[in-house]
Amino acid sequence: MTETIKSRAAVAWGPGKPLSIEEVDVMPPQAGEVRIRVIASGVCHTDAFTLSGDDPEGNFPAILGHEGGGIVESVGEGVTSVAVGDHVIPLYTPECGECKFCKSGKTNLCGKIRDTQGKGLMPDGTSRFSKDGEPIFHYMGCSTFSEYTVLPEISLARVDKAAPLEEVCLLGCGVTTGMGAVMNTAKVEEGATVAIFGLGGIGLSAIIGAAMAKAGRIIALDINESKFDLARQLGATDCVNPKDYDKPIQEVIVELTDGGVDYSFECIGNVDVMRSALECCHKGWGESVIIGVAGAGQEISTRPFQLVTGRVWKGSAFGGVKGRSELPEYVERYMAGEFKLNDFITHTMGLDGINDAFDLMHKGESIRSVIHFDQ
Amino acid sequence: MTETIKSRAAVAWGPGKPLSIEEVDVMPPQAGEVRIRVIASGVCHTDAFTLSGDDPEGNFPAILGHEGGGIVESVGEGVTSVAVGDHVIPLYTPECGECKFCKSGKTNLCGKIRDTQGKGLMPDGTSRFSKDGEPIFHYMGCSTFSEYTVLPEISLARVDKAAPLEEVCLLGCGVTTGMGAVMNTAKVEEGATVAIFGLGGIGLSAIIGAAMAKAGRIIALDINESKFDLARQLGATDCVNPKDYDKPIQEVIVELTDGGVDYSFECIGNVDVMRSALECCHKGWGESVIIGVAGAGQEISTRPFQLVTGRVWKGSAFGGVKGRSELPEYVERYMAGEFKLNDFITHTMGLDGINDAFDLMHKGESIRSVIHFDQ
Repeated sequence: MTETIKSRAAVAWGPGKPLSIEEVDVMPPQAGEVRIRVIASGVCHTDAFTLSGDDPEGNFPAILGHEGGGIVESVGEGVTSVAVGDHVIPLYTPECGECKFCKSGKTNLCGKIRDTQGKGLMPDGTSRFSKDGEPIFHYMGCSTFSEYTVLPEISLARVDKAAPLEEVCLLGCGVTTGMGAVMNTAKVEEGATVAIFGLGGIGLSAIIGAAMAKAGRIIALDINESKFDLARQLGATDCVNPKDYDKPIQEVIVELTDGGVDYSFECIGNVDVMRSALECCHKGWGESVIIGVAGAGQEISTRPFQLVTGRVWKGSAFGGVKGRSELPEYVERYMAGEFKLNDFITHTMGLDGINDAFDLMHKGESIRSVIHFDQ
Repeated sequence: MTETIKSRAAVAWGPGKPLSIEEVDVMPPQAGEVRIRVIASGVCHTDAFTLSGDDPEGNFPAILGHEGGGIVESVGEGVTSVAVGDHVIPLYTPECGECKFCKSGKTNLCGKIRDTQGKGLMPDGTSRFSKDGEPIFHYMGCSTFSEYTVLPEISLARVDKAAPLEEVCLLGCGVTTGMGAVMNTAKVEEGATVAIFGLGGIGLSAIIGAAMAKAGRIIALDINESKFDLARQLGATDCVNPKDYDKPIQEVIVELTDGGVDYSFECIGNVDVMRSALECCHKGWGESVIIGVAGAGQEISTRPFQLVTGRVWKGSAFGGVKGRSELPEYVERYMAGEFKLNDFITHTMGLDGINDAFDLMHKGESIRSVIHFDQ
């Protein structure tokens, strides 16, 4: 039970290189830690961003992956909130319940293990992964591209065993990020007018969130019109391609909505689009939420008059969702049929096919590829 | 009662010129309008900004002044909410109760007469002021630098007749702007940590608002330390001069507060300070409110990471206070002794001394000069 085990894993040996499927050693969980068997993992743009070498916090060699679903294999000393056999979703945003952030009740950005997690290490400053005795870094506290992985107890949401892990793994990142930004960060109300910039996994999830919140008008924007069919199917009432217009897209949206939208969401990571998203908001009350992650060093800007006249600029990480206390409810709502996840899963493959998943993503040919470890 | 009357007024004939005391003609109020006798008027930086010629919306010749207190002299057809003899505070942000903005309940930025007000005209597109038959423009819908002035009914807050108009006139702009931004826009709660950038009339009023909200720590910042005594007297717990430090002031504040403040307020109009004010906010929940008005074309900027990690950037105009429905309550709280206004009034003078008031302001030697029309 609590010995080092062998695990198949996709190892990122260095920036820009394809992942390499290896047999690695995974140490037993230490005090406060849990070892899980990963059943499935989505492949997200953030994994690709780190793999590219552009992520200034990227450490190599590492086992990437942060959008997973698994089953508890063994627990370390003092672990009480999960037991062997429990189904869990790894959390790159943990919830300790004790730090200043958790206690504030105002944010999901737990600070307990931020420093070590950012360095690719467990809270005690070491790694549980190695190959031929050489340590391999963890990634975002999750490392779900490994059949077995070790996480702090505070980084696991226990979920309904009836939920298919091959689907609800997507709630470990993208889908929750988009839905949560709408329902949790912005708290979109019934009848509101909403604009969603960028129709990748996050933007499409934001559409689902807006539809669940009963927004009256959901304007979906993308320069790739092939996304529009699915956007409409999920609830978009208007699909707009900014390339069809000669003027700034914020002006187009303001005209289309008689003054601007109540809420907008930037789901790309483009600082110019972030400005458009703010400026298409209605004077007096419009709120814009940044979800996308911009490149290192890039800045957003606008005239302060935009804010003085009542617009609000905010952001959202993991949809503002507190992983252990709130994520299980997202799983319940999924199980109750309130939203679907298979719309997002365009490809599935075994771990051996993981580099294909990255290729599909780079070519824009997938929404999500999900790795099934039993394939 | 309803004939054209002669009025002493300070006329701004053109940008950059001293005001000229003249006898002007003030037409009777038309339908929906009210003529008032101005008892007192504060002199605000916004008046100076327009007089300088830097205000792209400035019209000349005009009668400036927008921070007044007066008594209704006559009313036009259909006016029902005020009567002759009522005491009133002119509102540069009216409240019609009928437009999209007023009906939203989310903002005080009434849109009803915005276009004509911005052009220096009454809602029917004409002026009530003239000199030798030549029209003179209104200013901010108020023009309180005239013994008599005409305003739309929706631009008047009726206040307690017992309130001294020579003091509560300050609630027509600066003091309400600062207090309201704290209590109304940010809704600062008991025990919160607050930073206030700039200790002019607005910043000092923000300190009062923070003290009334029972903020636990109120950090006042200015490069002019002569403001610190009054700031402390009004409730500041820490006074900080950014020039005393070699590093960005946001870093100083973050260290001083173990992670940042809960709320910050920019009360200057400097886009670099606006950035500092945002970035000194606590990760996860800190909110920064822009109150100051920046120069035309200037932009604010920051890294989007600041927002994605939970900070909120917003703004406030007239403290978010709805003039007719909420300003009378500020007067009541003043009358109940909850805050003082005479701390702000460093000078009083008759209309003849108005250019001295501008000089004192430019030299930084006054907080507020108040013009008494009976002097």
